[in-house]
Amino acid sequence: MARVSQEHLDARRRQILDGAALCFARNGFHATSMQDVLKEVDLSAGAVYRYFSGKEALIAAIVGEVLGQVRDRFEEAARSSPPPPPDALVASVLSRVLTTKESLTVEGQPAFPRLVIQVWTETLRNDELADLLREGYGAVRQAWGRIVEAYQDAGMMRSDVSPDHVARTMMAAAMGFLAQQALFGPAPSDVLRDGLRALMSVQDHGSVNLLETRSN
Amino acid sequence: MARVSQEHLDARRRQILDGAALCFARNGFHATSMQDVLKEVDLSAGAVYRYFSGKEALIAAIVGEVLGQVRDRFEEAARSSPPPPPDALVASVLSRVLTTKESLTVEGQPAFPRLVIQVWTETLRNDELADLLREGYGAVRQAWGRIVEAYQDAGMMRSDVSPDHVARTMMAAAMGFLAQQALFGPAPSDVLRDGLRALMSVQDHGSVNLLETRSN
Repeated sequence: MARVSQEHLDARRRQILDGAALCFARNGFHATSMQDVLKEVDLSAGAVYRYFSGKEALIAAIVGEVLGQVRDRFEEAARSSPPPPPDALVASVLSRVLTTKESLTVEGQPAFPRLVIQVWTETLRNDELADLLREGYGAVRQAWGRIVEAYQDAGMMRSDVSPDHVARTMMAAAMGFLAQQALFGPAPSDVLRDGLRALMSVQDHGSVNLLETRSN
Repeated sequence: MARVSQEHLDARRRQILDGAALCFARNGFHATSMQDVLKEVDLSAGAVYRYFSGKEALIAAIVGEVLGQVRDRFEEAARSSPPPPPDALVASVLSRVLTTKESLTVEGQPAFPRLVIQVWTETLRNDELADLLREGYGAVRQAWGRIVEAYQDAGMMRSDVSPDHVARTMMAAAMGFLAQQALFGPAPSDVLRDGLRALMSVQDHGSVNLLETRSN
């Protein structure tokens, strides 16, 4: 029996995941069959099923991988003291994820943003996927919450706002920016970074409260 | 021939649009037939087709109505001098839209956020809908851009960032927050308002540049 290197196994797994991601981005999860995936990756059923038991396992692996990468980045950021400011941090994580996936295209457009909104829609009908997403986003949200606490501890951000609300808002900005790319085409992460930076320059209208918060 | 009041026509139109929105939110645009809509609103084909020529016309009316409302709110805000600060403005417009639609529910959950992400996904396959959305979002983006210019003119926001980038970022936050509600359940708009407000309290790390910008 031929021995197969770990490298080869990993490359094959990557090939299958990328092919499946393309299929899902192109036609949605529901309208994609395992047959479509086999055709896309040009492998036999045996070769693919050795790695993944079916569509559910494929989408779980894709979603888990991306959300895992995002969570790792934010956990890394949470350990630095103080963490990078929010504008730079959001843009760098987003740009890193988009770069990892930039070789995947559908009709000449990046496939990743399309994949993201397809996955969101699919969760409305697929409880297993919904649970997976809730768990993955929950981990990112916790990591972001810790970063917000670090901002607040370092006096970089007012401390009278729930870290979780800030975490949700930062994630919302990134999620909405991805949706815009799916709808209207690619845009550099700098757009989001600059927009957040401009927002950071706005003086709070409750300026007395703000000063009190800051001096705490 | 019986005369029908404008009020009656408007109420009937509203009934059809709300019923169609429910169907689309429940099953997506693609899997919904005109038959499903007729059943939902409990009207004859003749009564419905008098108002809308088909699914395309229904979704166009729904999308056009919502984006029109959002654009109107932002255009109104752009006329006040200075406009309300971004945290309050985003939250008030979002909360107003959600309130308009709160009577529409699917499985006990607000239908509107679900409808939104279904529409986004549908644009990937439906060029007409994609054009409609691009146009509608374009108008909102322009209105937001004018508000950002007003912030910058009033010295409320640094003026070295493109108003359009800030507009995209503010819209991204609202869009992503809607997506979160579709995925994880309803959340009050205050969450987003507080998150943006906390972001506004972060000092820019390029503080020298910021001070220079502010003193301009």
